Amino acid sequence: MATIGKGRDVLTLVNVFTVKPADQEKLVQLLIEATDKTMKRLPGFISASIHKSLDGAKVVNYAQWRSKQDFEAIKHNPEAAVHMKAAAALATFDPILCEVADSIGG
Amino acid sequence: MATIGKGRDVLTLVNVFTVKPADQEKLVQLLIEATDKTMKRLPGFISASIHKSLDGAKVVNYAQWRSKQDFEAIKHNPEAAVHMKAAAALATFDPILCEVADSIGG
Repeated sequence: MATIGKGRDVLTLVNVFTVKPADQEKLVQLLIEATDKTMKRLPGFISASIHKSLDGAKVVNYAQWRSKQDFEAIKHNPEAAVHMKAAAALATFDPILCEVADSIGG
Repeated sequence: MATIGKGRDVLTLVNVFTVKPADQEKLVQLLIEATDKTMKRLPGFISASIHKSLDGAKVVNYAQWRSKQDFEAIKHNPEAAVHMKAAAALATFDPILCEVADSIGG
């Protein structure tokens, strides 16, 4: 379970994947496996929450890392690169690096 | 503080706003105010977490509603419509309705 809070010193990555509906479930499973096998063991990993859109056309990964440096370091990890390449073969993606301005309710 | 968990029966809205960097903070404040004044009092509201991208070009609202029906009902709320119109004047947006497939770490 991930938590979103104001004032926590984390980097948030919102990665929106656009995918053919026929490939949505495959991409979801690929991202879950990538997180379970590789990402969660990397320094600075906090959480990854994989979402599937109701219309079948998107997958959203809401991920939290300790810092931008930790996130950038993924790019140099060969195991992570294999997962990224597999995801890129199924979908286009638009990663947004951000911080929480406010979180209301819960 | 919002929580993301697998198997919770919630509708997740990931709304990605594209904005001029000069307007990013204004949009963030507008969304916080809309949530505080209106959204959080509407039936089925669970949480809204407003994020600003590090490059200044995006704002992401990660919101949770009890059901799709509750979320759709916002469209008929005149107060909410005023806030939406103000946001639309500042930015384009791409709302994604989704469900959590998995959440790892935390």
